[in-house]
Amino acid sequence: RVLYQTATASKELDGVAIVSAIIGAPDPKQAAAHLKELISHPPPFAASASPQILSTRDILDRVPAIVKSLGEAKPLCHNMTNLVVQNFAANVALAIGASPIMSNNGDEAADLAALNGALVINMGTTTADIRANHLKALSAYNIAGGPVLLDPVGCGATQARREGVRALMAGGYFDVIKGNEGEIKTIAGPALVKGQQTQQRGVDSGTSTLSGTEKATLVRALAAREHNVVLMTGSTDYLSDGARTVAIRNGHAILGAVTGTGCTLGTTIAAFVAVHREDKLLAALTGILMYEIAAERAAERDDVRGPGTFVPAFLDELFAIRGEAARGADAWVKGAKVEVLEL
Amino acid sequence: RVLYQTATASKELDGVAIVSAIIGAPDPKQAAAHLKELISHPPPFAASASPQILSTRDILDRVPAIVKSLGEAKPLCHNMTNLVVQNFAANVALAIGASPIMSNNGDEAADLAALNGALVINMGTTTADIRANHLKALSAYNIAGGPVLLDPVGCGATQARREGVRALMAGGYFDVIKGNEGEIKTIAGPALVKGQQTQQRGVDSGTSTLSGTEKATLVRALAAREHNVVLMTGSTDYLSDGARTVAIRNGHAILGAVTGTGCTLGTTIAAFVAVHREDKLLAALTGILMYEIAAERAAERDDVRGPGTFVPAFLDELFAIRGEAARGADAWVKGAKVEVLEL
Amino acid sequence: RVLYQTATASKELDGVAIVSAIIGAPDPKQAAAHLKELISHPPPFAASASPQILSTRDILDRVPAIVKSLGEAKPLCHNMTNLVVQNFAANVALAIGASPIMSNNGDEAADLAALNGALVINMGTTTADIRANHLKALSAYNIAGGPVLLDPVGCGATQARREGVRALMAGGYFDVIKGNEGEIKTIAGPALVKGQQTQQRGVDSGTSTLSGTEKATLVRALAAREHNVVLMTGSTDYLSDGARTVAIRNGHAILGAVTGTGCTLGTTIAAFVAVHREDKLLAALTGILMYEIAAERAAERDDVRGPGTFVPAFLDELFAIRGEAARGADAWVKGAKVEVLEL
Repeated sequence: RVLYQTATASKELDGVAIVSAIIGAPDPKQAAAHLKELISHPPPFAASASPQILSTRDILDRVPAIVKSLGEAKPLCHNMTNLVVQNFAANVALAIGASPIMSNNGDEAADLAALNGALVINMGTTTADIRANHLKALSAYNIAGGPVLLDPVGCGATQARREGVRALMAGGYFDVIKGNEGEIKTIAGPALVKGQQTQQRGVDSGTSTLSGTEKATLVRALAAREHNVVLMTGSTDYLSDGARTVAIRNGHAILGAVTGTGCTLGTTIAAFVAVHREDKLLAALTGILMYEIAAERAAERDDVRGPGTFVPAFLDELFAIRGEAARGADAWVKGAKVEVLEL
Repeated sequence: RVLYQTATASKELDGVAIVSAIIGAPDPKQAAAHLKELISHPPPFAASASPQILSTRDILDRVPAIVKSLGEAKPLCHNMTNLVVQNFAANVALAIGASPIMSNNGDEAADLAALNGALVINMGTTTADIRANHLKALSAYNIAGGPVLLDPVGCGATQARREGVRALMAGGYFDVIKGNEGEIKTIAGPALVKGQQTQQRGVDSGTSTLSGTEKATLVRALAAREHNVVLMTGSTDYLSDGARTVAIRNGHAILGAVTGTGCTLGTTIAAFVAVHREDKLLAALTGILMYEIAAERAAERDDVRGPGTFVPAFLDELFAIRGEAARGADAWVKGAKVEVLEL
Repeated sequence: RVLYQTATASKELDGVAIVSAIIGAPDPKQAAAHLKELISHPPPFAASASPQILSTRDILDRVPAIVKSLGEAKPLCHNMTNLVVQNFAANVALAIGASPIMSNNGDEAADLAALNGALVINMGTTTADIRANHLKALSAYNIAGGPVLLDPVGCGATQARREGVRALMAGGYFDVIKGNEGEIKTIAGPALVKGQQTQQRGVDSGTSTLSGTEKATLVRALAAREHNVVLMTGSTDYLSDGARTVAIRNGHAILGAVTGTGCTLGTTIAAFVAVHREDKLLAALTGILMYEIAAERAAERDDVRGPGTFVPAFLDELFAIRGEAARGADAWVKGAKVEVLEL
């Protein structure tokens, strides 16, 4: 994994850490052999090496078919998520056509990873015990080649969370990282976020300190460093795989008055990456558009009179878009407000 | 318990396991005396030994009074359930007139078992620690004679869950076992399900491999073996106590697009068994009919536009049926689609 | 803390327990110095020492501005709550304008306590492990001077819960204690509740055994003993800070058919105490009125047809009242049914 992630880095890995680990292992020969095998086979998550350039037109053309394919494939969407959103996340997964399983038990992750789905690791509620389970599951999916999404909820809010997210980032490969501005800054760290405060207040992002271009540049740099897809959510979302960077201006302010709307967006994106691994950025973008356009449609319904009635209407609309995609009625995607950025 | 469950078995218990347990005990004399006492007194859960034959007419006549009696008795409904459905299950219990308590702490189960209610053990989220709490509570209710329902969610999906459900089945007596086809097959095991695959994909049932008659026969055989009531859910539900077997064709497809609709059916059935222990099959059937007819009514409401708005409407309708039963307005039960099967 | 709570007690502290603690400490000198410092500085939670006398007119005049100030301050509302209501509590907090964080991890409580918010300790789901986390967080907020609310859910139902609530009460200072009649009786104990049964049946209050005046007197006596604010909920709520006692007759019967309506009232009150520490009784009263008047408005809406549709409508109305308060539209508070009691 480290070799994969450092393939385009400007300096060579010096190997000291790896060598120490081999020497410290109970059976050095076996550890070295295992390392050799790891190096000689490309890791199973090293997909979508040379994705296509995207135009806004490409997106509008291709998104509906990906929504349809999810409803047909019914991918397993394995959520290791906080206690607050388990019900909401499972209902979102069902509404878009995925098969949710909400298991925080790392010991069964290997069995679940074999079922060809995706894993969401959401650290909204985190303790040492929960983290150990997350690391087991992360490893299981990395070995099986199943996509993993990290949602580092409130990771800049407390010392415990900052350590937690560091341990997760060191523990395996994430295909997608999504967070608000404060969370993405915390993960990017001082190397990418110079002179910026990364203290979060609770799980909210806190006041924004970056311009749109700075956000886009940060997201692209983090994705390039991690060799994955990074999403920074906000009134405008920024999404990048290190090469291509997209701004999305869909969604509705009422999402901010409902708990778990960030977390369940993560569930949605993970399900799409499970069925469209060949281009993870396009998969993530499809999930974002389905999610945020459903939110816009729900917010406009006459039976929605506030954030309470918004939630059931939003689930209805996710389910409705899935139905429309299944029968080829693709007018919904015309609402997409996507801009491919030149940075 | 083992004697009760093997009363009609074709071969004798050989007693070796029991003898070994006595020899291994710290005080063999006391253990033997305890065993003698267990054998000489019938266990408290050995009720409804010779239930009446049911006709469809019987059912329509008797169900509304049982719904009414639940609203009057307000039985405690103790749920040891997964994290996904706790809120939904508590609201379903309140809507039908039960008093829910969602405690996963095995150490307080004995106190709760004394309050004359029922226990639901739902293994949707399971770890070794959770299982230990389940076993403590199961034992407490078995001793107190309180009914226990097992909902083996996803029990065929992973090795951890297969072992978990075996440990639970070995750990005490369940008055009711409910599951989808995949779950019931896993519990029945190869002795009853010859040559059938029992690998589940996540918590969904997977593709059905049984005809209606095969399902009914399997449910009856499992209930006969376990001396309890078994329910296999699906578009047609099959319910049996080993002697009588019933098919129920109520419910609505939208239930499949909402998380926890299986789990909260378990909560409903357990509450009914708590107030109508003299005929557990009829109690379970009452819960199924109230639940599924409420779902049909909700799905038809003009304010229901998808699975999101279905959930609040469904809770409304459960509450409404309870109110109708309380004032003797029993037209709702005419929607029952029940068939007493001759196997 | 003990000195603060016993300041108006009729007999002196004899100091034996404190002396023993010093002798038993690893470094007696340091422990004694620490004690001296604790005594010479008033604890940070010793606010609102001489609050104003309230008239009903005062209340109607001052409540809307406090609602408005909460929406502006967006206080962190840290909930250590049971698994059943986490989602509902987070959505209530967002609707009233607070920033919820649902963390049950005691190790991050000190970091969160520094963010100037309030803590809710809800013991609806409790084990030894959960309690240890509660005690850590309680201590962290007491040191930081952040308000803490105790919601002793079902604390009289089982031996485990009775012990749990005793450990919490002994472990620190609660600015507000809220409970139903059974719970408040359990906390008050035999010294204040002579000859009364305190056995609860599940988490429900059980049959009331007290008249209105007896409830008001008990609440005042408990608040005086604990030097804090105590709320006993019911069809009439009684609220006291030991000096002033108020009866509130708002709310709606349908709240009793929805799980977590007591717990989320606690979340609401805690958020208000966070922004209005100078008069905790008035802060709590503001939260109760906003909550119960929103419930009345929701119950009257034409789209509410039972307890299911009530919940989203209720969240809408909390959000609507917050909006009205923000723009100075204060007609909503005219629905307040508050009586200042002379005892």
